[in-house]
Amino acid sequence: MTNRVKRSRSFASDNNAGVHPKIMEAIAAANDGHVIAYGDDPYTARALKLFRLGKDVEVFFVFGGTGANVLGLKAATASHHAIICAQTAHINVDECGAPEKFTGCKLLPITTADGKIKAEQIKPLLHEVGFEHHVQPRVISVSQATEMGTVYTPRELQTLAKFAHERNMLLHVDGARIANAAAGLNVKLKETTRDAGVDILSFGGAKNGMMYGEAVVFFDKTLAKDFKYTRKQGTHLPSKMRFISAQFEALLANDLWRQNAQHANQMAQRLAIELGKIPQITFTQKVEANGVFAIVPKKYVPLLQKSYFFYVWNEEISEVRFMTSFDTTEADIADFVGLVKKIVK
Amino acid sequence: MTNRVKRSRSFASDNNAGVHPKIMEAIAAANDGHVIAYGDDPYTARALKLFRLGKDVEVFFVFGGTGANVLGLKAATASHHAIICAQTAHINVDECGAPEKFTGCKLLPITTADGKIKAEQIKPLLHEVGFEHHVQPRVISVSQATEMGTVYTPRELQTLAKFAHERNMLLHVDGARIANAAAGLNVKLKETTRDAGVDILSFGGAKNGMMYGEAVVFFDKTLAKDFKYTRKQGTHLPSKMRFISAQFEALLANDLWRQNAQHANQMAQRLAIELGKIPQITFTQKVEANGVFAIVPKKYVPLLQKSYFFYVWNEEISEVRFMTSFDTTEADIADFVGLVKKIVK
Amino acid sequence: MTNRVKRSRSFASDNNAGVHPKIMEAIAAANDGHVIAYGDDPYTARALKLFRLGKDVEVFFVFGGTGANVLGLKAATASHHAIICAQTAHINVDECGAPEKFTGCKLLPITTADGKIKAEQIKPLLHEVGFEHHVQPRVISVSQATEMGTVYTPRELQTLAKFAHERNMLLHVDGARIANAAAGLNVKLKETTRDAGVDILSFGGAKNGMMYGEAVVFFDKTLAKDFKYTRKQGTHLPSKMRFISAQFEALLANDLWRQNAQHANQMAQRLAIELGKIPQITFTQKVEANGVFAIVPKKYVPLLQKSYFFYVWNEEISEVRFMTSFDTTEADIADFVGLVKKIVK
Amino acid sequence: MTNRVKRSRSFASDNNAGVHPKIMEAIAAANDGHVIAYGDDPYTARALKLFRLGKDVEVFFVFGGTGANVLGLKAATASHHAIICAQTAHINVDECGAPEKFTGCKLLPITTADGKIKAEQIKPLLHEVGFEHHVQPRVISVSQATEMGTVYTPRELQTLAKFAHERNMLLHVDGARIANAAAGLNVKLKETTRDAGVDILSFGGAKNGMMYGEAVVFFDKTLAKDFKYTRKQGTHLPSKMRFISAQFEALLANDLWRQNAQHANQMAQRLAIELGKIPQITFTQKVEANGVFAIVPKKYVPLLQKSYFFYVWNEEISEVRFMTSFDTTEADIADFVGLVKKIVK
Repeated sequence: MTNRVKRSRSFASDNNAGVHPKIMEAIAAANDGHVIAYGDDPYTARALKLFRLGKDVEVFFVFGGTGANVLGLKAATASHHAIICAQTAHINVDECGAPEKFTGCKLLPITTADGKIKAEQIKPLLHEVGFEHHVQPRVISVSQATEMGTVYTPRELQTLAKFAHERNMLLHVDGARIANAAAGLNVKLKETTRDAGVDILSFGGAKNGMMYGEAVVFFDKTLAKDFKYTRKQGTHLPSKMRFISAQFEALLANDLWRQNAQHANQMAQRLAIELGKIPQITFTQKVEANGVFAIVPKKYVPLLQKSYFFYVWNEEISEVRFMTSFDTTEADIADFVGLVKKIVK
Repeated sequence: MTNRVKRSRSFASDNNAGVHPKIMEAIAAANDGHVIAYGDDPYTARALKLFRLGKDVEVFFVFGGTGANVLGLKAATASHHAIICAQTAHINVDECGAPEKFTGCKLLPITTADGKIKAEQIKPLLHEVGFEHHVQPRVISVSQATEMGTVYTPRELQTLAKFAHERNMLLHVDGARIANAAAGLNVKLKETTRDAGVDILSFGGAKNGMMYGEAVVFFDKTLAKDFKYTRKQGTHLPSKMRFISAQFEALLANDLWRQNAQHANQMAQRLAIELGKIPQITFTQKVEANGVFAIVPKKYVPLLQKSYFFYVWNEEISEVRFMTSFDTTEADIADFVGLVKKIVK
Repeated sequence: MTNRVKRSRSFASDNNAGVHPKIMEAIAAANDGHVIAYGDDPYTARALKLFRLGKDVEVFFVFGGTGANVLGLKAATASHHAIICAQTAHINVDECGAPEKFTGCKLLPITTADGKIKAEQIKPLLHEVGFEHHVQPRVISVSQATEMGTVYTPRELQTLAKFAHERNMLLHVDGARIANAAAGLNVKLKETTRDAGVDILSFGGAKNGMMYGEAVVFFDKTLAKDFKYTRKQGTHLPSKMRFISAQFEALLANDLWRQNAQHANQMAQRLAIELGKIPQITFTQKVEANGVFAIVPKKYVPLLQKSYFFYVWNEEISEVRFMTSFDTTEADIADFVGLVKKIVK
Repeated sequence: MTNRVKRSRSFASDNNAGVHPKIMEAIAAANDGHVIAYGDDPYTARALKLFRLGKDVEVFFVFGGTGANVLGLKAATASHHAIICAQTAHINVDECGAPEKFTGCKLLPITTADGKIKAEQIKPLLHEVGFEHHVQPRVISVSQATEMGTVYTPRELQTLAKFAHERNMLLHVDGARIANAAAGLNVKLKETTRDAGVDILSFGGAKNGMMYGEAVVFFDKTLAKDFKYTRKQGTHLPSKMRFISAQFEALLANDLWRQNAQHANQMAQRLAIELGKIPQITFTQKVEANGVFAIVPKKYVPLLQKSYFFYVWNEEISEVRFMTSFDTTEADIADFVGLVKKIVK
């Protein structure tokens, strides 16, 4: 990576951002004396209570997002099961095979135009249910928001959940950007999770202003029965848990999660609007969360990357991805769009 | 856990402590703008350089200690290998089977009096080398300091390393308390690791004043060849890596690691000396790091635990463990010892 | 499965056939007194010598084909690797996820028209080589003959092998029907394996007249270094090994393997020629080994299955699969074709 | 292994013997035309019916004994569980770590004098039940007969089963020599399995006159629910299943299993009686099945091994193991004992 990042904020990824000041404050405030390690502390007790996503919800904190996904999926599967997901899913392409390694399951990826899978596409994967020669589909895993910046509506999730439950399958959500999705849909977290029929959720913190820490949320207690062992064996039981809990407390209290996500989403909208005014740039995906997918003519890309770091998503068609975050400013966008305009001229 | 922890600091565990102020400052200072995620940032570059443990050393940061152990062992083994360790080793009893799950290896535990294994004890485990029906010993894993508060001398480590290397085996060190060991021995980190023939080290941060983060240190580059994949697949590649790196930078610069460890060790010494004046209390282990193992008559234990949380290590003989940490004060010890004296009267 | 199989031989699968008489004789002859278990016996020594596939070849017998594939792949991979194969590959669809479970690897399937993958199709899967977020392609696995009844020419294999080796990858062959392939190509076994650049081969016995037993053949000794442990840990070290060895001895001596395969192939050719005279029947694949893939109008299928058991391959287009075996007779074909003619009238 | 085996039958192992003639006949008789592969055949249907071990029993055939053990244990466990067994258990020392690799579980071995574990010895292993840092004991696995030639009485098994069931654990039996145990106890198979509270049994064939093939027997149907997938993914679904089934049919019909086992046991008794007359030889275990464990002065061992192959069990004390089998003759014993007498003179 030889790109020079001249500006203090880039559009590379929402995890290139730092930590929201209020979360940093909460961390500092939690640094007070001794508490019992591994989660038996008042910070954790308070944070868990704030996950008001419905009755009988069980929540477990872990270090990071890949761990959250892998362990949540492990709780739902035996090794002869299959996990259905979009071809573009983080669990399929960005976790170095961690789901297969840790669960033993096969992933069955579905090609999509926008990162969203539809029940109709799943049906052909169910032809071999009951035959021992074949892996048995057990989980439908979707990303909300998707890796393509799109968002499932609650109704779309409900349809998938119903499809799953009617076939003894479960609906798993990789919610690394669940906050951006809920903010984009302008619904409560509960509406896009519990009420939509989701069974297991990875609730992301790091992409929404936290330093580290994710939550695995079970909407069916029986799935969580042995999860404390799965988490520990899965190497994701933090000793100084309070510092994750304090972050979640800050994020969930007073809807900081929503403010952060909303801001990032609005910046993405603004970026898309401004870039849309430049005729050389076209868009490949709807902007429904905090990502903008655009085709930028190949010759301009390295010139832009001299000042702003961002990823080329699809080299063949020169599709690039711009991500905004809780700390993206209007000035950042003005500056960047100004730069684009200058370069394309 | 119904114990009331009345005091702000207990002797339960060094990971019940919080974060050292200088480390907290370093975290706050790192929260400045955007940097590339996953370790391609200047904080990480600087922190890695501070691991001055010899030429050709490769260092990787991970979230936590169980992850560090499991992934370091994975780098050294194939699934038909065996890992030799003390019966009391953290990898054997406190990681919920994570080493077996992730490496596929069998652990071959050795019973010890003081948590330290000797080469002589390993020999009988090597009878079946070369026979396909049996797992093949590949790694000797020791804890430094041990879970019993004892410390291997550099010479003891050298003997084990030589024994291992002569038999195509490797020496792995679970260094959750490597700082306490080096401080206790009054040697440089290098003397108790690289110079002692160690091949792979889990370098612990959390028990020595960090918030989270451990390092897997390879003293043989070939063992590290694929470790970046092992770490990612092992769910231990932190996205906002800079916040671990900044902590390590603070810990390793100006020998903060040694000051913290030395202080904790001294507090353990003082605690042992003071408790040693109470005839009802006897000791089961030498105090060589920051742990004190003592037999406290059963009837006193719950009374003490009303004010100070600590663990009973061996219920049969009423052996308890007191751990000190970087923030233990002389006043804490005076208060606690005073309480013991009051109770045993 | 409620189909009545009226005829003593069906076209369902080559593993529905029994054991060739000469192999049965060899088994009986091996039942003579005691020999050392697990392969340290003269039958095994002789059988291994008959695998004259080149210098430095290492051969290991196992119980069955899925075991052979999975363990051969394990020998070539670490868990962060990926295995590239055709979508239709047995390892991808017919082994209930055994490769993922045992190796931890991800399979990267390629859609093909005829079960054969081409180097060009592999290139897009190599975009992420060197990036830790992504599994690293390490093995190209092909089936020879393919599950679609087609066969790679030696030149096609050479091209794949060269492509693989230039990229630090290996070529694995699932040779459940390697005999049919070599017979169909009219080449020596060596020409379609060693000389074609194959690194690891599952050499199938059961589909060519053996009762049970497969061989994992390594053309690179270094890959076989730890395989005796992998086989034992993989639960595939037969105690009474001599009875597998005696079968391989009978199969490989005097080219029984080729006679059996050639006969099965000829029967497939004859079946295709005869069915080709019936205008209602069309073919979806070339007949290059012992399988015939044909579209049979849906209404005829159940009528035919009353007398002959065979599998519907693709329900949507009413594609069926007919497999011939070493014991298929011209009379079987005449009888079956007569039945088809009667029914379609 | 350079030992010369001069005699046609040795005392090395019951799996050095060949196949019982009646079983060989049954194999030959099953070689008749085509049947559906993978167990959907009349031979398998008949063989399964012969496992008359009680209501609701589920039986699955696999290739071999290590596979039977590993897959049976997999059906009973999640990866955070522990399996308690004797230190000498085949699953602990003779399967190259296959249980750990395939189940992910830790094995907790218990030191015994005679290969038999007692409930009292298990209690200390249960101290950490419910704590997430520690593996959770789930299965007690015993070998019947044990690897030391001893046998659990039905009452001893009942005690272990009761102990297990009261603690939400299961009793698994490695019955590689279950026939020898039942014959030695002079009880029905059912009495030493179902009636004794066993939950899962590996029913051994190869050590009792079969060529290959073992059965995994579930006495609780719910444990077997997904086992067909576990078997296939575990690479132990034989394609030409009928040849295993025909062997089991021959073994179980007319109590051939008992005749074979009884004969082997009687030969062991006779061997022990005759060797017992030689003062230089002493015994380390009771002879309750088909194994004789004796101390033979070191200098005699190589002299004996020139003519008869057998294993030294414990080199330190010059303990050797003699195994008898279904085909051991009185003449073999007379010849061997004569040799011993000659040598010790």
